[in-house]
Amino acid sequence: METISFIGSGHVATHLAKAFFACGHVVVDICSHTPGHAQQLAAQVNAHTAHHISSLRPADVYIIAVDDHAIPQVAQQLLPMQSLVLHTAGSVDLSALQKFPNHGVLYPLQTLNRERETDFRMVPFFIEANIRKNYNIINRLAKSLSGNVKELDSETRARLHLAAVFAGNFVNSLLGMACDIAGAQFEYLKPLVEETVKKAFAANHPAEVQTGPARRGDEVSINKHIKSLSLQPGWQTIYRLLTENIIKQSHAK
Amino acid sequence: METISFIGSGHVATHLAKAFFACGHVVVDICSHTPGHAQQLAAQVNAHTAHHISSLRPADVYIIAVDDHAIPQVAQQLLPMQSLVLHTAGSVDLSALQKFPNHGVLYPLQTLNRERETDFRMVPFFIEANIRKNYNIINRLAKSLSGNVKELDSETRARLHLAAVFAGNFVNSLLGMACDIAGAQFEYLKPLVEETVKKAFAANHPAEVQTGPARRGDEVSINKHIKSLSLQPGWQTIYRLLTENIIKQSHAK
Repeated sequence: METISFIGSGHVATHLAKAFFACGHVVVDICSHTPGHAQQLAAQVNAHTAHHISSLRPADVYIIAVDDHAIPQVAQQLLPMQSLVLHTAGSVDLSALQKFPNHGVLYPLQTLNRERETDFRMVPFFIEANIRKNYNIINRLAKSLSGNVKELDSETRARLHLAAVFAGNFVNSLLGMACDIAGAQFEYLKPLVEETVKKAFAANHPAEVQTGPARRGDEVSINKHIKSLSLQPGWQTIYRLLTENIIKQSHAK
Repeated sequence: METISFIGSGHVATHLAKAFFACGHVVVDICSHTPGHAQQLAAQVNAHTAHHISSLRPADVYIIAVDDHAIPQVAQQLLPMQSLVLHTAGSVDLSALQKFPNHGVLYPLQTLNRERETDFRMVPFFIEANIRKNYNIINRLAKSLSGNVKELDSETRARLHLAAVFAGNFVNSLLGMACDIAGAQFEYLKPLVEETVKKAFAANHPAEVQTGPARRGDEVSINKHIKSLSLQPGWQTIYRLLTENIIKQSHAK
């Protein structure tokens, strides 16, 4: 059991704090420049709020769960100490925390919204630490939340994070366009999307199970679609580029 | 129980013929310009093969399941007759079959690969017919395969098909890029993608549950990603466009 404080009160901090609290860890402080969020979260995990990094109480572990670009600034404000200092960002190098003698990374690969419950048990956690002793602590912390914990270096984690933007954020963006196009019929696309995902991960490579007009080289349908998107030139360009990509992929496989 | 013949032996014809055969309909002929596929499919559904449209035997229903652009040509070659003639294409108008006194559409909204089993019971089927009598026949046929059958006019079906290209084919294409970027780590993205899909369909609109660097306006991560895609300029452009689209979507909601 560790005492843990959070810097940040966004989606990731919220879900991690609640999950650590639920499995018996003590959450000491929630420190955030959004006092409303901090108070709301602190109340849920029996913690205090700290209005500034300088007023944080002692804890075994400090988890910096803020926007990726704000991590260096938080690291600068935190005084050097013996406690273990972690960040949770996919794209930020371990070395961003090198001023702390004990530091590491705890990266949960999942899309998190503050308002939606998440079951961490199946979520992959990627961890990294400056020395073995700290690796063992992070590993134990992560395994108290998830059955899917792996060590991963910063460079590979950054590539995985980029892949996650394509497979998560960009997929959601395409679903948004599909929703606008299909209107009330959007819900009927759910079995299609679920089967698409199932097939893509069952195949050696998603290109092997590609279907649709681009894969068939069906130019009549492609031209019809491009024409029907004439009022949405941005989506028209996205349609063209993804169609070209599928045609290239088919030839490469 | 109907007697059914298929023109075409691709993914859609294969799955429909096997499913109709499995629930007791008689499949008479499989007619295809790919004799190998036709023989393979005919053997599985106890049917004959027809080498040309002119040699098709009598049947209650003829299902044209060929590439969208080939439907007019097949319709031209088929002699006018009293049998019910259907096509299975999302983007082709009902009127493509208007030379037949009894005609309609049977569109299964799913991504189908010949090599992969499909459970049609949850697949949405969209149907349309020139007259009520034919609608009732198609409705009965579709309901023998699926619990999810809806009437839909040609124009709405075409929009749904376009939406399906974004939500299915293009999603798979993004997963292909993610697979190339993540390499051996690709499998770890599965819980993320599944949660993304679940959230998108549970929300009023996928934009409401958008996460990631673009949604947060995290330009540091975005620029890092764009830089790391410098050897794949095609994907770099796709990254830029989808990022811009997410930023626009966030402002619109």
